[in-house]
Amino acid sequence: MKIIETNGAPNPRRVRIFMAEKGADVVYEDIDLMVGALKTAEFSALNPFQRVPVLVLDDGTILTETVAICRYVEEIQPEPPLFGTGALERARVEMWQRRVELNFLLPVAQVFRHLHPKMAHLEVPQVPDWGEANRGRALSALTIIDDALGQSRYVAGDTFSIADITLLVAVEFMKPARITRPAELSHLARWYDEVRARPSAAA
Amino acid sequence: MKIIETNGAPNPRRVRIFMAEKGADVVYEDIDLMVGALKTAEFSALNPFQRVPVLVLDDGTILTETVAICRYVEEIQPEPPLFGTGALERARVEMWQRRVELNFLLPVAQVFRHLHPKMAHLEVPQVPDWGEANRGRALSALTIIDDALGQSRYVAGDTFSIADITLLVAVEFMKPARITRPAELSHLARWYDEVRARPSAAA
Repeated sequence: MKIIETNGAPNPRRVRIFMAEKGADVVYEDIDLMVGALKTAEFSALNPFQRVPVLVLDDGTILTETVAICRYVEEIQPEPPLFGTGALERARVEMWQRRVELNFLLPVAQVFRHLHPKMAHLEVPQVPDWGEANRGRALSALTIIDDALGQSRYVAGDTFSIADITLLVAVEFMKPARITRPAELSHLARWYDEVRARPSAAA
Repeated sequence: MKIIETNGAPNPRRVRIFMAEKGADVVYEDIDLMVGALKTAEFSALNPFQRVPVLVLDDGTILTETVAICRYVEEIQPEPPLFGTGALERARVEMWQRRVELNFLLPVAQVFRHLHPKMAHLEVPQVPDWGEANRGRALSALTIIDDALGQSRYVAGDTFSIADITLLVAVEFMKPARITRPAELSHLARWYDEVRARPSAAA
């Protein structure tokens, strides 16, 4: 398997951590999204939505979308399970993965994309008022997530899952987005210290 | 199973169509999100993210997030499969479900939420420039989706799936969002005439 990505960008990082947790055999090919590499005709033929990462299977089959790529690997290499086991747990993992992605990672990304000067040529038009509106949304969601982490070891329960990977990447994305992590979110801090110490976090 | 929803809102409608396709036995309870019903302490206890729909199982277990609710029902009632069959097809369905949701439904929703006067008390602050920026995004994504529908009967291939449900709801959400569907998207028009004629579309 080959993955075309931009090393360090949030969605590629989610896939890298997932692959490291799986011990999957992957070759990475780096392209720089900051210089417009996703807008080329060659890349658009791989993914018309012009996003990384892109998974290229050995027979040339292409899959895009972070969670779709991860789910494919979960299917062909089920251990360790990162999408949950059993109908209810799988639904809970999906629920938390989506809650974290849509209510926290996405707002953090909006703050970054609409307020950071280096994004001005990629996010057209930048709408600073929209960036500012998302700061409060991100922090509200993080407070709810902190409550959940006060009730279970990981985001979706007592087992590490793809929801934790999304949260880890989103928490670290706060730094370039210039959002301060509130010190009073102590459950989140406990969880973060544990999860960032996993070998996969260095992937 | 009981589903708490706001009848007619886009995400509840996705779940209703899914349940109709499955022939699932569901009781619906309607609450009106337009009058602040999601902000109450009672509802927040069900879903701290204050969104409908909410699935309540017979034993009181709660699940939220449209796709997590649908995936749970797929697991307990697999026929007809709406998330694909086999590792690769399931990944393709997930890829297209996400492409349609994140690149088309979400921008249409942003146009509606940030430009429609009746959303002013729910979307605080409304950022009209952000609403306008999403009109073009929605139409760009729809052009790519039209291309895909020129190559296969349904969005994710030759079988009707949850990706088609998301697309149907998003296409119909263009009307309240006041986005005109371009007449030249002929593959989309062919698909739309077929999909809206399914009995589930009246759910």
